[in-house]
Order: sequence, then C-alpha cells, then structure tokens
Amino acid sequence: MSDAAASDRQAAKAKMDELVSLCARRGFIFQSSEIYGGINGFWDYGPLGVELKNNLKALWWQKVVRERDDVVGIDSSIIAHPRTWEASGHVEHFTDPMVDCRACKKRFRADQLDDAPACSSREGTSEHDFTEARNFNLMLKTSIGASQDAAMEAYLRAETCQAIFNDFKRVRESSRQKIPFGIAQIGKAFRNEINPRNFTFRSREFEQAELEFFIHPSEREKWFESWLAERLAFHTALFGKDALRVRPHAKNELAHYAKQASDIEFLFPFGWQEIEGVHDRGDWDLSRHTQYSGKDLSITDEETKEKYTPMVIETSVGVDRTTLALLANGLVQEKLDDGETRTVLRLHPLVAPIKVAVLPLSKQLNEKAEKIAEDLRRVMNVAYDDSGNIGRRYRRQDEIGTPFCVTYDFESETDRQVTIRDRDTMKQERVALDGLVAYLRDRVEAPL
Amino acid sequence: MSDAAASDRQAAKAKMDELVSLCARRGFIFQSSEIYGGINGFWDYGPLGVELKNNLKALWWQKVVRERDDVVGIDSSIIAHPRTWEASGHVEHFTDPMVDCRACKKRFRADQLDDAPACSSREGTSEHDFTEARNFNLMLKTSIGASQDAAMEAYLRAETCQAIFNDFKRVRESSRQKIPFGIAQIGKAFRNEINPRNFTFRSREFEQAELEFFIHPSEREKWFESWLAERLAFHTALFGKDALRVRPHAKNELAHYAKQASDIEFLFPFGWQEIEGVHDRGDWDLSRHTQYSGKDLSITDEETKEKYTPMVIETSVGVDRTTLALLANGLVQEKLDDGETRTVLRLHPLVAPIKVAVLPLSKQLNEKAEKIAEDLRRVMNVAYDDSGNIGRRYRRQDEIGTPFCVTYDFESETDRQVTIRDRDTMKQERVALDGLVAYLRDRVEAPL
Repeated sequence: MSDAAASDRQAAKAKMDELVSLCARRGFIFQSSEIYGGINGFWDYGPLGVELKNNLKALWWQKVVRERDDVVGIDSSIIAHPRTWEASGHVEHFTDPMVDCRACKKRFRADQLDDAPACSSREGTSEHDFTEARNFNLMLKTSIGASQDAAMEAYLRAETCQAIFNDFKRVRESSRQKIPFGIAQIGKAFRNEINPRNFTFRSREFEQAELEFFIHPSEREKWFESWLAERLAFHTALFGKDALRVRPHAKNELAHYAKQASDIEFLFPFGWQEIEGVHDRGDWDLSRHTQYSGKDLSITDEETKEKYTPMVIETSVGVDRTTLALLANGLVQEKLDDGETRTVLRLHPLVAPIKVAVLPLSKQLNEKAEKIAEDLRRVMNVAYDDSGNIGRRYRRQDEIGTPFCVTYDFESETDRQVTIRDRDTMKQERVALDGLVAYLRDRVEAPL
Repeated sequence: MSDAAASDRQAAKAKMDELVSLCARRGFIFQSSEIYGGINGFWDYGPLGVELKNNLKALWWQKVVRERDDVVGIDSSIIAHPRTWEASGHVEHFTDPMVDCRACKKRFRADQLDDAPACSSREGTSEHDFTEARNFNLMLKTSIGASQDAAMEAYLRAETCQAIFNDFKRVRESSRQKIPFGIAQIGKAFRNEINPRNFTFRSREFEQAELEFFIHPSEREKWFESWLAERLAFHTALFGKDALRVRPHAKNELAHYAKQASDIEFLFPFGWQEIEGVHDRGDWDLSRHTQYSGKDLSITDEETKEKYTPMVIETSVGVDRTTLALLANGLVQEKLDDGETRTVLRLHPLVAPIKVAVLPLSKQLNEKAEKIAEDLRRVMNVAYDDSGNIGRRYRRQDEIGTPFCVTYDFESETDRQVTIRDRDTMKQERVALDGLVAYLRDRVEAPL
C-alpha cells in the first residue's frame, strides 16, 4: 500500500469512527443487544435514528406511491410460502462463495479476501491457508407449524420484491390498475452475510424500499430511463449531486434475465457504494411464478386483445444504507470565525429527526416556552431543552441536525416575538409568535 | 347448543365472511402467497390495507411519542442476542399446552378444544382421542452466522418490548431522559401459534405497538391508571365507547411478577377480544436483564441519591387486531330511503386509506379534474375515478371508507366550485375550488 493510500484509508476510518461514535452517543444507531455484547450484523435505531429512518421511508412513500396515480403499495408478511423462493431462484442460487482458513478456522467471503484480517493462528503474518471456495446460501431458515407432520421449512425473505410478484394478480385486480403501473413495498429483509461490515452498510437484517413497475415489453428502455432519472432526482435533492454517481452494470454483472441495470452510488468514507439499484428484470419473475404456481400471471390488453407477461422495471433502495449516507453526508466539522469548531449534521429538513428545538433563555421562562413547544408538537417533532447556556444548547441541536432553534427570552414577554436561529447559516431572526407555526411548517414541510 | 346460540354463531360467521370477502376483493388484506395456496397464519396487506395500517401506526406514534416530552421511540432488530429470551423467561416458559389426536393425527391447543373441528378419522363424530397435553414453545428459531463453530441459534422476537429493556440504559443516557419516561416501539413479532384463527386476529406474524413507561416504585398505581385512561381515550375516539370494554385481569391470570393488568377489549363478530393490554410489569424485566447481562440497569435519583430499579407500566397494542377492529366496526350495510342498500365503511378520517376521491362528471372534464387530484395528492391520499355513473362511483368509495368525494361538473367550469359529498351523511355541498385544499385538510387532519 502506498503512503497516500494508507493515509486515505486512515482518514476514512477516522471519519467512520467519528460517525459511529456520534450515532451511539446521541442515540441514532447502536449495536443490537449491546448489554449482551451485541450480535454481529444487527443494529438498533435509537430515538433520533428511528425518526430519521421513518422520515426517509415516509418521503419515499409520498413520492413513489401517494403522489402517483400509477403506483400502489402493499405490506406483505416477512415469511412467505417457501415455493416462492424456489420460483425466484433463491433456494438454488442465492449464495456467496465461502472459504475457511485451515489454520485459524475463520470463515471469509472468497471474493473479499483483500479485507480478511490477519490469521490469528500464524503469529505476525497475514498468511492464511484457505480451503477451496464453496457456495453458502444466504437465506435465513425457520420452521413453521406446530404439528410435526405439517411442519414446514420456511425462509425469512431475502428481498421484499418477491411478495409483490406473488400478489401481482390480486393487487392488479383489486386496485383496478392497468399496465403500466407499479406496486411498492417497504419492509425488513434478511441475509446471513458471511462478513457483515461497514457499520449498517452490510448487515444481516435490513430494510428495503422497492418498487416493481409492470410494463408492456415494447417500453422497457423508456421506463428504465424514466425511473432512473426520477430516483436520481430524489437522491440529488437529499444529497446534492457531487456525492452521487450512476454506475451502469457491465454485461458480465447482469443477471441472465436482465437487460440492463444501474446502481445509484454514494461516496461513503469507505468508497463509492450502492444505495439504490434500478433494474430491468424482464419477465423473469412473473414467468417463474406462473410456472411454479400454475397460476396464469399474464394479462390481456383490453383494447388490442394482446396477451402478454408484463416486463418489470425495479427500483430498490437500501433504507439503512441511505440513512447511513444521510448521516455521513451531513456530518461536518466546521471551523467558525472565532476559531472554534462546531459539529453540525446537515440533514435536509424533511428527514431531520427533530424539526425545531424550543429553548427558554432562562428557567424562569419555562412555562411560556413549554406552551410554544406543546403547540408545535401537534404538527412537527420538537425538542425542548432548558439546561446549559444557550450556545451549548445550540451545539447540541447542531450535532443532531435540528434545522431551527426557537429561543424565548425576556423581550418575548413584551414584544410577542421569538428568535429563530438557522442551523446552517447560524443567522438569527425575530419572528412574531402568532406566525411561528406557519413560518416553521413552510420551511420543514416544503416538498422535495 | 341452543337455537339462539346457533343463530348468533351463524350471524357472526356471516359477518366475518362478508368482511374477509370485502378485504380480499378491494385489496385490504388477503392470504400471504395466495398463488401457492397460502400459508397458514400469514397475511398480506394490499394497497388499501397498508394505508389503513400505516395511518393507525402513525396516529399511535403521534399520540404516544411525538406529542409527549416524556416518551421517545426506537426501532430495534427483530433478531436479538438469544440471551435476551433466556432473561425474559421466553425460552423456558413461552409455551402453549398442546395435544394430538391419536386417530386423525391433528394437533390442537389443549385450552381451546371446544373449537376443534371434527375428527377426520372417525366419520360422523367429533370424538377425538387426545394425547396428554404437553408444552410447545411458540418462538420461531433460526440460525445466524456462516461459520459453523460460530453459528448461533437465535429467535425471531416474540414481542417487541424486550429490545426496549435491552436498550434501556443506552436510550436513557443518549436522550437525557429522567424517570418517569417511556420508550416506544412499533414492529413485527412472531409466534408459532398452534391454531391461527379468526382472520388476522391470531396470526403467526403480527405487528405490535408497545410502550414501556419507566417509573419510581411509589408511583405504580398512579401511572397504571393514567395510561389505561389515555389508551382507552385513544380507542374511544376511533371506535366510540359501546364497542369497547376494559377487563381487569383476575389474580390467577396475572404473571407472577405483575401487580395488575387490564385488557382493552373490542366486540368482534367472534366475541369480546383484547386489542390492547395495559400491564404493571414491576421491575421484573430490568432486574432479569441486569442479572443475565451483568450490566447494572438501576438508576440513581440525582436529587435524593436513591438507587433503584425502575418499575414498568406497559401498554401493548396489537396493530393487526386493531386494524381488523376498525374494519369490523366500520363495515355497515345501510338501508337507504329509496329502499336500496349500500355498503359503507365508517372509518375515522385520520385512518381512512383514501381521504378524498376526485370524480369528473364526464370524461370531457378529465383534464381539469386530474389537475385537482394532482394538487390534493401533495398533502393527502387521493383516488381518481372516471368510470361508471356517479352513483356507482360514490358506492365504490363508500365501501372503502373514503370520507369525501369531490365531483367536478360542467357548472364547475364557470362557477369555479365543486360538489363535496360526505360519506356518512351523503349530504352534498358546493365549495369554492380556491378553498378546497384547506376545506379538506381541516376535516381529514383534525387531531384525535
């Protein structure tokens, strides 16, 4: 490794350490079951993390489902009939190549050996003695049903989209949709990753927000381009364009049924990585489920009488990855004019966990300030903080990404105005109490 | 069975059949993996069902978390460290008594044999030959980790609250909360029910909305009463009071650590059943996790310096049950003055899947009507329907609980007004287009 590469790696590690530490300290994200030493590949979202992640999911749902006439949502069970995963090809093919080290007995992904830590059985050397690679299925299994003869091996879903294909006919008929239209879902999925890593980026339990958009075979190119543009615009509004790139898949990366695919990648401290994939899946899924279920999932065009199996354009967001990207993108150490440094989390107001903090200048003013907080709470998420000097309270809010602080001071008693301080510019403005709710709603609810 | 009882049972069955049929036909709820013959105890929410359930969850979160200064939320992983379930007592005690029929080999819950269907091996008789009852653990198991030596047996959580106890210390410290305060969570849980039944009421995968409220031992009675009243008010606002009752647990129903518990029950077609439980859990959970993890979960009062383990008041909502209750409560066959019957789903506007339907009187008016729908979609969930006569379109919306229909007609072209029709009263009113968004927001967003 060159000196420059080593120094880059060190900076990236420092940035991740800072992020992980902030997340635990302020209650965004921390290890699941921490008091029991944690469980590898599983994470819990704390009070701020759950608000951030929920805001992101709500925003996706608003843009992809509610604002469109041609997309509907579903919420399917995590455990489906196991034939689903035979039809999808997961039982046979959803594997990673795995090797064991004969010396230290540790297991690694054969395609990620560059990152394997040193062999613990061979002191002072990283020299492993690996077995041949073999395939390891990543689906988590369980067993359903109390009766032994009726007990059924089942899987925790490895992706949310298969339930959309299972439900395609029922949803199309009950919602009276016609091609082209889409079905969207947000939910948990599970993969028994051999080496979970990069904080929440690659975990064993994660959340997806997926859209399967069903189209006529003649319109694949058009809809692929249109959804890629739409999804890129969504992320650009949240991240700005410099942190993002689109990486079209090379021919040899494509699944055999796929015509094209592009990843939307974000520049994490650990490099460019996918936060969303846009895939032309062809008619693979509906054809396979037709074959395995014996139910005809083709449709007949009402006007032309043409009978065909729809093709699918998929957009698949990693919710945890995108949440992590929001945190990584937002976290800045900023040098101020007075020589001080402040930590600020520049989150878009639509996803910020807390929209406004209400701060009485003195505890004597608590009653009035609490009344303001109470009114605001009906329409947005509010923090209330009356402890410490005002500068310190501003810093606490900067660090968790709160876009606005409202300070109630002694002057407010007579002029019925409060000071609103902007997280990013740190500029302060006096605003009439009467117009406060409207002032803040305009700024924290403005659509993407 | 008496004639009256038989007739009641038949009426209840008819009501449930009607509900299940509506849910499938209109895309509220249907069997998971229908095309593969379904999977017992698992359900999917369709386009209307997911909106209804999400609205209910958002409403709970708004009332229990966001509007309160003393409650914060979390979102933990479904799979936790398995020691969690040893500490909680689930590994040892989370069982149902189970019997087998020696003749037909079917398995039943020993405490629900009244509902066992006739023995299929003994023609024309319901006479089973049951084995002795034995305990069957209801937790679903899986195995985590790719490495054989490091593989870990783990459980899908049987309740969401245990993660709250696991995370208690981290959440309290990072959110700077002081006793009394609560931690809330919404999420999936899994139980391998021996006999899933009553539609979504008793299923194997379900969703809970739980609050654990941590208090000083001297305040158990006060907080139990306060939360019970609060939660009853929530349901009463949605259901009215006649459909609800509070059933305090008898001494012999209480867990050994519990001081008191009350169920909030709803009158389903199949009888009074719990939709929420309010429990005084004492310090059982925190004490057990302290013991099993070796981490001290007690707290020290800053002022009095008293060190103690907080007691817990829990409120636990079955989200699927409450969604089912909303559907059962809302569904009415109504005789109209003209002798016709209409099906109407009287859902509270805050939970209704679609808030308003926009209906152009003629397809000639589509362009203008679509513009109205588009504007409304930015702030609420909207349906657009231009097919069939207007009466039929009203009926379609009645059946799915849409509180308002907006009709754009030829007169609208000149007077810039639309007709708003109310689902429940069927009364119509002319409203200026300019004020339409505000008119509807006032009515569908009014807080509970």
